[in-house]
Amino acid sequence: MKEYLDISDINNLHEIIDEAISLKKAPYSFEELGKHKTIGLLFFNSSLRTRLSTQKAAQQLGMHCIVINFGADAWGLEFEDGTVMNGSTTEHIKEAAAVISQYCDIIAIRAFPTLTDKEKDLSEHVLNNFKKYGSVPIVNMESATAHPLQALADAITITELKKTAKPKVVLSWAPHPKALPHAVANSFTKMMQRMDVDFVITHPEGYELNPEVTKDTPIVYDQEEAFKDADFIYVKNWSNYKEYGKVVNNDPSWTISNKQMAVTNNAKFMHCLPVRRNVIVADEVIDSDASVVIEQANNRTYSAQVVLKRILEHLK
Amino acid sequence: MKEYLDISDINNLHEIIDEAISLKKAPYSFEELGKHKTIGLLFFNSSLRTRLSTQKAAQQLGMHCIVINFGADAWGLEFEDGTVMNGSTTEHIKEAAAVISQYCDIIAIRAFPTLTDKEKDLSEHVLNNFKKYGSVPIVNMESATAHPLQALADAITITELKKTAKPKVVLSWAPHPKALPHAVANSFTKMMQRMDVDFVITHPEGYELNPEVTKDTPIVYDQEEAFKDADFIYVKNWSNYKEYGKVVNNDPSWTISNKQMAVTNNAKFMHCLPVRRNVIVADEVIDSDASVVIEQANNRTYSAQVVLKRILEHLK
Amino acid sequence: MKEYLDISDINNLHEIIDEAISLKKAPYSFEELGKHKTIGLLFFNSSLRTRLSTQKAAQQLGMHCIVINFGADAWGLEFEDGTVMNGSTTEHIKEAAAVISQYCDIIAIRAFPTLTDKEKDLSEHVLNNFKKYGSVPIVNMESATAHPLQALADAITITELKKTAKPKVVLSWAPHPKALPHAVANSFTKMMQRMDVDFVITHPEGYELNPEVTKDTPIVYDQEEAFKDADFIYVKNWSNYKEYGKVVNNDPSWTISNKQMAVTNNAKFMHCLPVRRNVIVADEVIDSDASVVIEQANNRTYSAQVVLKRILEHLK
Repeated sequence: MKEYLDISDINNLHEIIDEAISLKKAPYSFEELGKHKTIGLLFFNSSLRTRLSTQKAAQQLGMHCIVINFGADAWGLEFEDGTVMNGSTTEHIKEAAAVISQYCDIIAIRAFPTLTDKEKDLSEHVLNNFKKYGSVPIVNMESATAHPLQALADAITITELKKTAKPKVVLSWAPHPKALPHAVANSFTKMMQRMDVDFVITHPEGYELNPEVTKDTPIVYDQEEAFKDADFIYVKNWSNYKEYGKVVNNDPSWTISNKQMAVTNNAKFMHCLPVRRNVIVADEVIDSDASVVIEQANNRTYSAQVVLKRILEHLK
Repeated sequence: MKEYLDISDINNLHEIIDEAISLKKAPYSFEELGKHKTIGLLFFNSSLRTRLSTQKAAQQLGMHCIVINFGADAWGLEFEDGTVMNGSTTEHIKEAAAVISQYCDIIAIRAFPTLTDKEKDLSEHVLNNFKKYGSVPIVNMESATAHPLQALADAITITELKKTAKPKVVLSWAPHPKALPHAVANSFTKMMQRMDVDFVITHPEGYELNPEVTKDTPIVYDQEEAFKDADFIYVKNWSNYKEYGKVVNNDPSWTISNKQMAVTNNAKFMHCLPVRRNVIVADEVIDSDASVVIEQANNRTYSAQVVLKRILEHLK
Repeated sequence: MKEYLDISDINNLHEIIDEAISLKKAPYSFEELGKHKTIGLLFFNSSLRTRLSTQKAAQQLGMHCIVINFGADAWGLEFEDGTVMNGSTTEHIKEAAAVISQYCDIIAIRAFPTLTDKEKDLSEHVLNNFKKYGSVPIVNMESATAHPLQALADAITITELKKTAKPKVVLSWAPHPKALPHAVANSFTKMMQRMDVDFVITHPEGYELNPEVTKDTPIVYDQEEAFKDADFIYVKNWSNYKEYGKVVNNDPSWTISNKQMAVTNNAKFMHCLPVRRNVIVADEVIDSDASVVIEQANNRTYSAQVVLKRILEHLK
């Protein structure tokens, strides 16, 4: 693997999931692989799981980690070409990416979308500029449109927990007071399209994700109908895609409660976290045995570790 | 030792002090013990000594450290049960504690009190929620009501420096412009109650600490009388406990100067730091040979190290 | 080397440059030297290159790194003697420096000037107080008046790239919207004065640097004349020194473009970064083969590493 920008960077999905599950059993078995290698973790946004699990994964591979919180620690970055930089930005991505590439063997980046400039977000502005001007492998720790480390952790979790060869998986929108990105929903959708599952998306009408992502995945506007006989319920809010970045619906009837879960096949409840309790999901569901959100978060370590392992092997 | 929330988690005080003094002489002698173990240091508040000394201690035991500054780096945490989380908090402690427990073998937490909600502070709201919902040992890096790593460092310092079998130790209040927590004073008091010392507390009337902490420790409202023949003067401001979190006295005559020290038995001056010079203590005292504040701070490393060592041994 | 506050701490410049170039070829050849040693990186200001390259250098020597962002992570520091600390500062440098010295074997500090209090800045207030009250070697990661790690990286870069025995090197002022420190220009000037180069400074009249730094270095007010036949053009803005810290000139004709470079001897373009494009330098120059800013930044690792190596050897 030469980089991990999107799940399309995974060639053989089965193999990488199996390898992640092996690493989970023996996390230090490749501790020599990352010796004398440095990963730079660049955060433009808040992070808990990603921050910790990626450091953990890197350390288990014997790597050094350097964490940078842009904004707080370093300089305001300019991404536009040809700008006269007499405003608030102090350093151009051209220099920043090239310079960081010299100190780090791998660069991992978290950079959320603007949710105001659709074109810029869809172009993966920040991530692609780091790729363009950097010279080392880039790992996506959640970008404007994708969260592939999360999707891989989700795939590992479903693989570990599924009880039938082809489980039914439902991605459900749920309400949220703030405008949230599409990244998690996009990457989960792409991942499910590649797995041997019966995959359905449910959300209020008008909340369609990018059709280039959903393609021919069935969309069911009736949540209850979608949930019927489901084995896994994956819940996530996203802001409107057409009225880009707007919150046009806050319907609490979409909040996941026992009522919704009742029609499933004893489905497991999944969410990438952080989750707003009693807005996205009722306490009664997330506190029940159906919830596997903690196991999911744990798999973030092994999804990061298998990706870093593959990239380190490619660097050799 | 299975956790370190309060000094009551220490069984054999003599033994742990002796072991800390041994570690000070050979800090890398248990470097293999923490191999492949990760400690997460969670800061909800500023920290210098605790931040550095706990990292140092962990590294000397061969552990990996991951530092998280809540607020700046991660998500706003919700601690209340059953809340509809449609406000400013983004993640519930139930998930946060469970998730961090999967990435870290030990979690160390600094979380100061509100000083406005007495009941919440006394319940050790943050610390106990991490304990309740987490699944790994918790180390208290200063909580609402306790600072047991400081108290252990203080006990080490007094043990190292005492010249008589049963020295006289005085805890004295001193003025401060801002409302400060009771944590240091509480833990020092509890620690002195367990040591073979003649222990007295002095403060202006009305500044009594929690009586459940002070118990039958003599309280002397006349600072000069309290200081007579003292071997150790431990100074600390705390805000009012009855009029909870209020600053009701700023009397500069309580500031420690040579005049106060004159009646002691050449007492050592102690303070946990940071200290406001010429408010808590006059330059002439803290700059004199009587001051042992730097040695005290140094012992923070070994108090943390002996605690982490004991917890690591318990994890095996 | 017992500390690195200024380039005057370098005895044999040739030797240290050669050693840095050797370390660049085999960065892990002294990995045992820093074993069980801790460096504390103290940032009072933003940093990208310094933050990363100094961590990288320390890790390549096998050291532990602890990073502290003052302001965000720790307490407000008081530097004045005898103050009654009842205001916004919480900890005196006397304690802070002494305490950090006990946790760290080397302390590296970044502290920019006020640019309002000339006397305070010239006294190297922050750095010298850490030196005065600390007890371990101090490394200057850019102080009020000096950036010696940058100057050493610059010297390494010129040594690697020069094509003649005695190249012509020009330090040129360029415009910038904000008041910037003199540190980089000062240290570069001092470094060039010690190297076997033909060194000239060019800037608008009235923008003279501290004459105690420039000494008898030729100053040419005509940028074009200064650039003639130059082999290296080193560009940097600095605020006015006489009208201390003021921006009294923003003349865009001083921005480095192809026109300026045309009269040079195919000069290499150098800048310490971060650089404001099309203010300090036109895209056409920094994007051309003449630009060596990325190589320069890379050498920051080896300038830090050779300095840390020398200090570690001195500590033994």
